[in-house]
Amino acid sequence: MPRPPEMIEITPTAAVSNDRHGNRAKCLQRLIRLDLPVPLSVALSFDTVRNLAKGNLPDLNALTAIFEDGDLLSVRSSSQAADWGGPGAILNIGMNDAIAERIAEEHGKDASDALYLSFIRTYAVDVLRLDEDLFDGPMTPRIALAHFEDEMEEPFPQDITTQLTEVLRSMARAWEGTSARLLRQAQGAPADAGLGLVVQRMALTVGAGEAGAGVVQFVSTETGEPQVTGRYVPHGLGRVDVSEADAQFIETDPRGPALQDRCPEVVTALKAAGELIRTRLREEMQIEFTLMDCHLAVLDAVKVPRSARAEVRIQVDLAEAGVISREEALMRIPPLTLNQLMHRQINPEAERDILAVGVAAAPGAAKGQIVFSAAAAQACAAQDIPCILVRRETSPEDVRGMHAADAIVTERGGMTSHAAVIARGLGVPCVAGANTLQLSMRKKTLTMPGRKVFHEGDIISVDGTSGQILAGAADMIEPAMGGAFAKLLSWADDARDIGIRANADTPEDARLAQRFGVDGIGLCRTEHMFFDPIRLTVMREMIFADNPGDRAAVLERLLPMQRADFIELFGMMKGQPVCIRLFDPPLHEFLPGDRDGIRALAEALDLPASRVSARIENLQQFNPMLGLRGVRLGITMPEIYEMQARAIFEATVEASRDGDPIVPEIMIPLVSAKREVELIKDSIDAVAASVRNESGQEFTFRLGVMVETPRAALRAGEIAEHSAFLSFGTNDLTQMTYGLSRDDAGRFMSAYVNQGVFVEDPFQRMDLDGVGELLLLGAERGRAVSPGITLSICGEHGGDPDSIAFSRSAGFTYVSCSPFRVPVAKLAAAQLAISDILST
Amino acid sequence: MPRPPEMIEITPTAAVSNDRHGNRAKCLQRLIRLDLPVPLSVALSFDTVRNLAKGNLPDLNALTAIFEDGDLLSVRSSSQAADWGGPGAILNIGMNDAIAERIAEEHGKDASDALYLSFIRTYAVDVLRLDEDLFDGPMTPRIALAHFEDEMEEPFPQDITTQLTEVLRSMARAWEGTSARLLRQAQGAPADAGLGLVVQRMALTVGAGEAGAGVVQFVSTETGEPQVTGRYVPHGLGRVDVSEADAQFIETDPRGPALQDRCPEVVTALKAAGELIRTRLREEMQIEFTLMDCHLAVLDAVKVPRSARAEVRIQVDLAEAGVISREEALMRIPPLTLNQLMHRQINPEAERDILAVGVAAAPGAAKGQIVFSAAAAQACAAQDIPCILVRRETSPEDVRGMHAADAIVTERGGMTSHAAVIARGLGVPCVAGANTLQLSMRKKTLTMPGRKVFHEGDIISVDGTSGQILAGAADMIEPAMGGAFAKLLSWADDARDIGIRANADTPEDARLAQRFGVDGIGLCRTEHMFFDPIRLTVMREMIFADNPGDRAAVLERLLPMQRADFIELFGMMKGQPVCIRLFDPPLHEFLPGDRDGIRALAEALDLPASRVSARIENLQQFNPMLGLRGVRLGITMPEIYEMQARAIFEATVEASRDGDPIVPEIMIPLVSAKREVELIKDSIDAVAASVRNESGQEFTFRLGVMVETPRAALRAGEIAEHSAFLSFGTNDLTQMTYGLSRDDAGRFMSAYVNQGVFVEDPFQRMDLDGVGELLLLGAERGRAVSPGITLSICGEHGGDPDSIAFSRSAGFTYVSCSPFRVPVAKLAAAQLAISDILST
Repeated sequence: MPRPPEMIEITPTAAVSNDRHGNRAKCLQRLIRLDLPVPLSVALSFDTVRNLAKGNLPDLNALTAIFEDGDLLSVRSSSQAADWGGPGAILNIGMNDAIAERIAEEHGKDASDALYLSFIRTYAVDVLRLDEDLFDGPMTPRIALAHFEDEMEEPFPQDITTQLTEVLRSMARAWEGTSARLLRQAQGAPADAGLGLVVQRMALTVGAGEAGAGVVQFVSTETGEPQVTGRYVPHGLGRVDVSEADAQFIETDPRGPALQDRCPEVVTALKAAGELIRTRLREEMQIEFTLMDCHLAVLDAVKVPRSARAEVRIQVDLAEAGVISREEALMRIPPLTLNQLMHRQINPEAERDILAVGVAAAPGAAKGQIVFSAAAAQACAAQDIPCILVRRETSPEDVRGMHAADAIVTERGGMTSHAAVIARGLGVPCVAGANTLQLSMRKKTLTMPGRKVFHEGDIISVDGTSGQILAGAADMIEPAMGGAFAKLLSWADDARDIGIRANADTPEDARLAQRFGVDGIGLCRTEHMFFDPIRLTVMREMIFADNPGDRAAVLERLLPMQRADFIELFGMMKGQPVCIRLFDPPLHEFLPGDRDGIRALAEALDLPASRVSARIENLQQFNPMLGLRGVRLGITMPEIYEMQARAIFEATVEASRDGDPIVPEIMIPLVSAKREVELIKDSIDAVAASVRNESGQEFTFRLGVMVETPRAALRAGEIAEHSAFLSFGTNDLTQMTYGLSRDDAGRFMSAYVNQGVFVEDPFQRMDLDGVGELLLLGAERGRAVSPGITLSICGEHGGDPDSIAFSRSAGFTYVSCSPFRVPVAKLAAAQLAISDILST
Repeated sequence: MPRPPEMIEITPTAAVSNDRHGNRAKCLQRLIRLDLPVPLSVALSFDTVRNLAKGNLPDLNALTAIFEDGDLLSVRSSSQAADWGGPGAILNIGMNDAIAERIAEEHGKDASDALYLSFIRTYAVDVLRLDEDLFDGPMTPRIALAHFEDEMEEPFPQDITTQLTEVLRSMARAWEGTSARLLRQAQGAPADAGLGLVVQRMALTVGAGEAGAGVVQFVSTETGEPQVTGRYVPHGLGRVDVSEADAQFIETDPRGPALQDRCPEVVTALKAAGELIRTRLREEMQIEFTLMDCHLAVLDAVKVPRSARAEVRIQVDLAEAGVISREEALMRIPPLTLNQLMHRQINPEAERDILAVGVAAAPGAAKGQIVFSAAAAQACAAQDIPCILVRRETSPEDVRGMHAADAIVTERGGMTSHAAVIARGLGVPCVAGANTLQLSMRKKTLTMPGRKVFHEGDIISVDGTSGQILAGAADMIEPAMGGAFAKLLSWADDARDIGIRANADTPEDARLAQRFGVDGIGLCRTEHMFFDPIRLTVMREMIFADNPGDRAAVLERLLPMQRADFIELFGMMKGQPVCIRLFDPPLHEFLPGDRDGIRALAEALDLPASRVSARIENLQQFNPMLGLRGVRLGITMPEIYEMQARAIFEATVEASRDGDPIVPEIMIPLVSAKREVELIKDSIDAVAASVRNESGQEFTFRLGVMVETPRAALRAGEIAEHSAFLSFGTNDLTQMTYGLSRDDAGRFMSAYVNQGVFVEDPFQRMDLDGVGELLLLGAERGRAVSPGITLSICGEHGGDPDSIAFSRSAGFTYVSCSPFRVPVAKLAAAQLAISDILST
């Protein structure tokens, strides 16, 4: 009788495919092709299961005919991708009075009863959805069968076809359920994803000989290191439902005998199977097996579950062993995976006692004592006590304390608040705008509705990756940037064809960037150099200067500090390009926000506090992002940029003395009109001429524009006339294109993304339709005027794989991103280059 | 001897042109063509004068040869446009000992001495730039000549050629001077504007017969009404330098005899000349004349100087008299001129005692008592006492007081501050951000550095057109929107081919718009309906509602008020389109800003003040313009838009009962993504269906989008799929395209415009390059998807002639502007249409 096409016996040559039968069916075929002892298996296609859900049964007689009479069967789900889920396996289908009797005869009543009882329960509860408590109390198969019959008003089915019908129908329906659908769609499954099923002959694991079931894998789930790991549950004792605690280890078990001691030949066979799978299926797989009289059956194999760190190690090892190519290793790792390797993480397995959730403002995790002031944070750091700095919001005076803290929490502010920007720069985890916290700076307490009051010194944990603040000391996973990671990055460097620079504001940042091996610095925000307390005081004096002359005199004192910064930066970058953005933020950011700070400043400047307050109030802006900052400050207070240009050029002269000449890149922020560029260019050219003259040394530099207003993108043609490069600042450009302040978007962004108003948060993932079009227009117009102009992205999107793909296809020279994002960017760039080669 | 081409005798057929000889020369030719008694005149071309400035003299012998020996000559400047200025006239050139003697013989020594002495002084001081005090003390020609010779170490030149040489050279050089250049460039003259000179035979005005000089015009400079005005200075008394006080009137003079009494035939001749000039030169001209023995000479004629009001009256009268066409009348009036007719103005002639200058936030002028609170303003209004409301900044509680005040002054804020927006809407003059004022609300005083302290009740004047605050009661000019003005507008309506709508937020605004005859309302900002105290309280209750249900319940109470607004609005607009923008501003704008307000609100809501403060603080945004407002509020708090839609539809049903069906237009603000439009559309469609169902009455409506983010312009194609119209909100679009907050731009805009960084303030004049490109892109993309889509501009640029030209050429259906801007817009639109017809 010809087998109906809806079911197919899995043989080495059968037409089994991932897209029609799912990945488990396909994997079983692969194992069979490797001559591994896989029990007879039949695959049911997606279509068959879809029909099943609609009530159209396949020909089950044909199905059972493939097996032998009296075989017990299992049914397992087989979705297209392993992580799309599917209903749990149902075992021992076909169990009935007759078979129970036969097993009792062959292997004893205990083994038979355990097996039968287990199946009755499973069938009643998991398949027919009866209440679990139906089987409460002391049970035997006979009692269970009676309970079943009472409940169902019909006897327990003895017929395998009936049992199989219900099992298959139940699994098919479960797949169509709403929650299963949502879960798999969250994993990226399409709406019409299909489910295949695999019907497999059970390998009996009862009896007097060595019999049991287990799983084994040959690398560590945590680290990816080679290591035989697994568990084996002997069933031979006459019990089937052996608990996990009774599981034994594979090779050695400190608690007693291991599988190795019971069936050494099986362990040898498993190791051989593992090696075969690794080299032929080119992955590390976890093998599910059974034994019957030390006779091995391989039921299934799945990719070893693994941490991000293990994933990197496994793929690098496979490539090193020649099993896969380096390119394949690079392609197999989702770039964002690398994020988890670079910061401490809260163990995803650990319980979380969440106190509050704010904006995930800087990634990574930390635990430590609560402190409420920068001074307390510094005191903790001096004693090596981990601490979490909790503030209403941070201001420049807090920067040292922020540096000293292990994490930062603020009650107010969002992704571009002072706390968030500084924390990302420092690599310190930060949760901003956790506004359900009730913070009393006076009492030094932290209160959450319905929770105990937290005091200074109490321990909390902060997850800057998710925005959570947790009570107590959470379990942490340490970063792993060692061997395999470094190797992977070097392969990515070989493969990629677009530059990756880092945003680095201070010599410390630059050192970090160098650790990840960058192609230069794409964005050095010079204002961050002024948050050091000594400089901050000088900055403030400048802000309070009454006229350009006084201002210039104060700036004179900042000059040697800036020059020293740049000398150090140039030295550290060893001739790689460094793109320095001129001063950008509104001045009020440098002034204190509270009464104490105002008093201190009034004392420092020897001015009445009222004058200090008045000046601060006078500098407040309605929409500071769109106010007096960037090139607008550069033009209205030219002394600032002149000082910065001089510092850059003097550092260039100095740093070029002992090596190759440095060619600094100077970038003008917030440009919206060509004339802004012309004016700044004139002024900077004059400073350069004067430094050349004074030093008697020639040097060159490149002047460019940060394109971050829509108008600058639209007018890129005329702006390019005076620019060696255009670097798109996608943060501000996104804010202005959407008319959306990143700091305020938190109020509604999650509602917006949940309702699909925005497909994704445009600050997380670059908006290719709107912002992207402005980039393309800007690039095209810039190139039309100046074909050799350097183009790049330097917003926080710079490290996003999408943005890298975009930049690559737009022919940009490089992307620049935060140092911690560099590995992700490198891997993403490598994958794009490899994909291109593969597709041609 | 052939006359050199550089000088040309002005005859009816001579080749005299405006572009080569200037407007005075050309005008003289026209007067000559009219057979008016113009003395012999010679025009020197621009090139001649340019050469003169370089030291190359024309052939002066040839010039003097045109005149008779012993003629005295005058030289006057003749620039291309009358208002480009030029050096003052020099008279009586050629005066010397011999001529003085001859005049003494003929007309007496007094007349001769006066003439000669006057010329010596002019020549010495105005031509040779000698010190004026050289001629201090009692003077005769003899003494003056001696002083001259002492100073110059050479005798006073007796030769007319020498005198003429110096006069011409001096005038040519004066034209090249920096201050003259800047002055004329401010009037729109090009950098290379030329100066022509007119050399004219002097008509002697000495002697025993009736002799003298005067000017006359036949319309009022102030009002443009027909009226013989002028002055006549008799010189026959033997004095030349008669003071203005001795001037007589033309027809009658209450102080004594008028010219009419002395030489009635001259007055008749002058009137005839005026009539001839009006009909043949088609303008109202002021005639400069001299008499000698009642013998008339017409020396010159210039356009009657005139106020804006007079200009309108004159041109309308000329058209009504058939002298010019209506189109020509429309073309002759610069549209912005009309602005001055609609508001009270401070008399431009009056002295100004300026106390402070702020942002010119709402045009017009007023004077009145200082009051420091809205309540005081209302009290004044109740007694009909004009008052000026002075506040640090205004908030919704102040709106009634703002309505009652004659003008508003704030210490803080800019063009989009609450005070400014409300004041423009109310048509109340406003100066915002006058931050040099030191305001003490406690002491109720206003202090300016170096000035007396102003108290409540003291009188000040406010010029909202210039931003000035003046001490005392300034002299005012009243608005003039009567006959000629109305006629001009009706002619403009006939000529224009683009719609003009008004921005009108309340029924009062709509009434005002109707006075100017608009094509509908292009922007009704519904939030302004909520500032009435009763509604404000309800709004605040809504803001404090804890959940959507409570919010909806509070909104239920606003519904009948909104419905009543719309019924009134629809009724007033008599079926003309009304475009209603859904709620737009961030919620915090409805909350009080000071301690008193918070306490009052806490009492009203029966909540602890701390909770009120916390909510207010919680609603503060970092960049409110880019925050939670507009459609973002509409989506996160759908109850608000649902209430508004219901109010609109119920009003539609109601207002359509007694007449033609109303088709309201509903506009969604701050859209940046298509999905926003879809969500709001679904919700509004549902409300419409429900109102249709409840009322049993059909109606239609048009849903559209306010395009005010760059992204909405870029994505206009997909947004147009769901939009009946797109209206470009150029205020916000400009802010976002430049990354420039209008409220903060004041800090540097004047520096920017002065340095030419921005050619003009983009909030005053639309940026065609950047913002304009986004409009064109949006229009093109919108039309590609929906060819019949209605396009318009509704920002404050809507009334700007440039923007109207832009909108017309882009094929927009209408522009919408503030009611007070409608006349300007209509005239500008008419001029564009007429120009198009003329050029085809």
